Amino acid sequence: MEYLEIYDSSLRDGGQGEGISFSLNDKLHIVSALDRLGVAYIEAGNPGFHPKDQEFFDRARTLRLQTSRLVAFGSTRRKDASCDADDSIRALLEAGTETVAVFGKCWDLHAERVLGATLSENLAMIADTVRYLTGQGRRVIFDGEHFFDGYKANPRYALECLRAAREAGAVCLCLCDTNGGALPEEIEKAVKASSDMASGAMLSIHCHNDCGLAAANTLAGVRSGAGQVQGTFLGYGERCGNVNLSTVIPLLELRLGIRCLPKGNLALLTRTANEIAQISNLPLQHDMPFVGRSAFAHKAGMHADGVLKTTRSFEHINPELVGNERRFLVSEIAGRKIIAKKVEKIVPGLAADSPELQEIISELKEQERRGYQFEGAEGSFALLVRRVLGKAEPSFQLVSYKILDELPYDNGASATATIKVRVGGRLQVSAAEGEGPVNALDKALRSALEIFYPQLARVQLVDYKVRVMEPKDATAALVRVLITTTDGKTSWTTVGVSNDVIEASWLALVDSIEYKLHVAKELE
Amino acid sequence: MEYLEIYDSSLRDGGQGEGISFSLNDKLHIVSALDRLGVAYIEAGNPGFHPKDQEFFDRARTLRLQTSRLVAFGSTRRKDASCDADDSIRALLEAGTETVAVFGKCWDLHAERVLGATLSENLAMIADTVRYLTGQGRRVIFDGEHFFDGYKANPRYALECLRAAREAGAVCLCLCDTNGGALPEEIEKAVKASSDMASGAMLSIHCHNDCGLAAANTLAGVRSGAGQVQGTFLGYGERCGNVNLSTVIPLLELRLGIRCLPKGNLALLTRTANEIAQISNLPLQHDMPFVGRSAFAHKAGMHADGVLKTTRSFEHINPELVGNERRFLVSEIAGRKIIAKKVEKIVPGLAADSPELQEIISELKEQERRGYQFEGAEGSFALLVRRVLGKAEPSFQLVSYKILDELPYDNGASATATIKVRVGGRLQVSAAEGEGPVNALDKALRSALEIFYPQLARVQLVDYKVRVMEPKDATAALVRVLITTTDGKTSWTTVGVSNDVIEASWLALVDSIEYKLHVAKELE
Repeated sequence: MEYLEIYDSSLRDGGQGEGISFSLNDKLHIVSALDRLGVAYIEAGNPGFHPKDQEFFDRARTLRLQTSRLVAFGSTRRKDASCDADDSIRALLEAGTETVAVFGKCWDLHAERVLGATLSENLAMIADTVRYLTGQGRRVIFDGEHFFDGYKANPRYALECLRAAREAGAVCLCLCDTNGGALPEEIEKAVKASSDMASGAMLSIHCHNDCGLAAANTLAGVRSGAGQVQGTFLGYGERCGNVNLSTVIPLLELRLGIRCLPKGNLALLTRTANEIAQISNLPLQHDMPFVGRSAFAHKAGMHADGVLKTTRSFEHINPELVGNERRFLVSEIAGRKIIAKKVEKIVPGLAADSPELQEIISELKEQERRGYQFEGAEGSFALLVRRVLGKAEPSFQLVSYKILDELPYDNGASATATIKVRVGGRLQVSAAEGEGPVNALDKALRSALEIFYPQLARVQLVDYKVRVMEPKDATAALVRVLITTTDGKTSWTTVGVSNDVIEASWLALVDSIEYKLHVAKELE
Repeated sequence: MEYLEIYDSSLRDGGQGEGISFSLNDKLHIVSALDRLGVAYIEAGNPGFHPKDQEFFDRARTLRLQTSRLVAFGSTRRKDASCDADDSIRALLEAGTETVAVFGKCWDLHAERVLGATLSENLAMIADTVRYLTGQGRRVIFDGEHFFDGYKANPRYALECLRAAREAGAVCLCLCDTNGGALPEEIEKAVKASSDMASGAMLSIHCHNDCGLAAANTLAGVRSGAGQVQGTFLGYGERCGNVNLSTVIPLLELRLGIRCLPKGNLALLTRTANEIAQISNLPLQHDMPFVGRSAFAHKAGMHADGVLKTTRSFEHINPELVGNERRFLVSEIAGRKIIAKKVEKIVPGLAADSPELQEIISELKEQERRGYQFEGAEGSFALLVRRVLGKAEPSFQLVSYKILDELPYDNGASATATIKVRVGGRLQVSAAEGEGPVNALDKALRSALEIFYPQLARVQLVDYKVRVMEPKDATAALVRVLITTTDGKTSWTTVGVSNDVIEASWLALVDSIEYKLHVAKELE
């Protein structure tokens, strides 16, 4: 096999993971990230079951996707209704996608005990639904729910379900290990047995991770004939999640030599994984294969030493292939080299053994000790470097701010901020109301500064995140605020840390504005 | 095979994971937890490399272990020194364990490029070290580092390394996938090829998770003849970690029918996993197979519905087998039956088709529409149910609060809160300074209410989380605050949502206190 379709279900099956709750905008952002990476299909919702998903499909139609096709997901018709009269099926059609996925039961236990249908009623539900949707001009993917458990319990019936879908016109038969209990050798056997039923339709493999075997099971499925792999990013999903696409895509491309993404796009993998984690507001597991921050981090002295002699000695692949990077956790020398590499991009020409670089490293360590982290805040890191080198004179100074937040409040604004700043020799006082204290402060600061720096009028905050760092200190805990800002041409992220969420936000806001005035101006 | 040895390396290989740093006491606690669970071996340190580990072995000798044997770990002798003259080997002997593990290179690339030794020098280092330690009365496990990469590059030499260790007296040959790059079929082939070399010695399998295949590779090793499995708890270890014993132990026992632990001890698995996570000061991944909090959590309505009909429908094993439990998550995609079940625990006796239950569901949906999420906030959910049913008269009413937050500030407190509440017919005004606005408000509210409800003095916040929901709205975004509270006997989590982080925190605080006064009091 040379090419294989990647079918992402982060927005549908992933949304069933505990702690995941995507807004409409989150979903649109994730679709864009997946399209840029270049997956073949994006299963984006279940409009028959979640009315909110209908709105998503309406909005999604305006996106201009380059590579990916959207898929709406739904179930077979109800036991006692025709397809015409089934609201969910109508909703599925209204989503307006060319391809739809419908799931049906392949395990006799489920048909009888969960649906309360006879085995032949269940076959009719599958066949009718696929035929109806095909008749409406849709390409139909049939998701055989619990296929592997079904195959173990009653192999003939499980295969009958596939046959029913195939004969009714399904172009793809997806074999699901819905409960995540299968072993690789069981997957292999059942996929091979299904090949005969497919008669030209594509086979797809859909694994869950309840036994920690989802990646191995997916590879077993591909080895046995599947031409499509279903999964979610970062393994989000019900219980222990679905197979993690950020693990299986590089396995398929690099170890099995099967292309899954447009050429060159594998290097976008780590970036995409981080974006999806950020949109989901969940930390990316540091030890996640291929894309985790620790995936190519060397801690033991002997390992770091080996890698410096020959990277192959402790790295199974070159991290750049997946857009990740090597890190050394103990070796001061190696750490220094990496920082020098980053500084070079901000202020070129500093020697690796210069006192200035030493000073930058000391300041960085001091800030990290105080709770800062610059990994996702390159804007603040660029300012730190410039400040140490005396290349970032403050554009303004805070004299003071005062914020009043109250309940109850009048006229829709719970908070009022008053701010006094000095720019050059001039003092400027300004005030604003806002939705909450940080919003009020943000508005007051801008209104004071735009008098001096009209270019700030084009600057807009596009992201605001708060992370409580030592949750056990409860409301007195240190918090880290990350703000992303854009001027329409470029965007940058800055960071602030304090016990006071308002002060942490203030520090990130100051960097946001200084970055525009010092760094982004050069890009204009 | 009926029985297999579990060899835990959490304290040694696990200690090389990023973010892991065990104190001496941490190590002793972990040894006790592993011994209670009943693993066969605990590899507890590398005394030749880390002098601190020597102290551990001195202390550990006083532990009375029931099931497990401690193992000290070290490397083969240096290229240019005899075993007698090698400090690391002396340290290894001084650890005083009956069994020792020594690792040696099995990959020609490593012998030549990393050690700078000839291939025959490396064989001599292996043979000499094993023979010397055996002569000192030790049972020797030989860890063949990079065995699988070595086997791929130069199979004859990799097997020669095993033979050298075996002929010198090693009782166990451990085959390591040190870089974590092997596929299950490669493991199978190489383990089978090693069987001939073993001539009576046990084979052991040691996998890393860089490809997300560590569990599958370990099973492949066992299927091919390994009688010992090495791994770490929770998969801690260098880069992406080692194989996770909390995943492979239940797989071996429940799916392959091979006993690994004393009879009945598998039910201690989830408790042991949680203890080790707590000692390591790392959160236990919620979606970890078998032992994670979400491993048997059902969110989608259809799944929950199926599990209520027959648990097998969406559970691959009974969670009690590993000491875990089934959970139903509250969310808009949860079905009516699940909500009815949850409500039953709070206010028993409500019929599933009662108008009250309908009203609870409507209120739940309305709150979710406004950004609430009750999945992790069972405290607020219990109050919602009681409020709808008229069983939670407010214990106090807010008249107003005012918070002043300023920069610069005097005396260490950036924020001051003033609050006025009504309790019964009485008005109470109170004020407090705090580290940030929410901390000030929290303190002011408590000082006002403790006059009326002295039991609140024992109540303490232990966790505080902030999630910005629509980051693109930046500082005006809706935020969700989660607060966890304890009274020393039980703990509960409550939620608040607002555009104003202070108001969101306020709402969660109010629920935190009302929960104590309405619900937790019944438990006293």
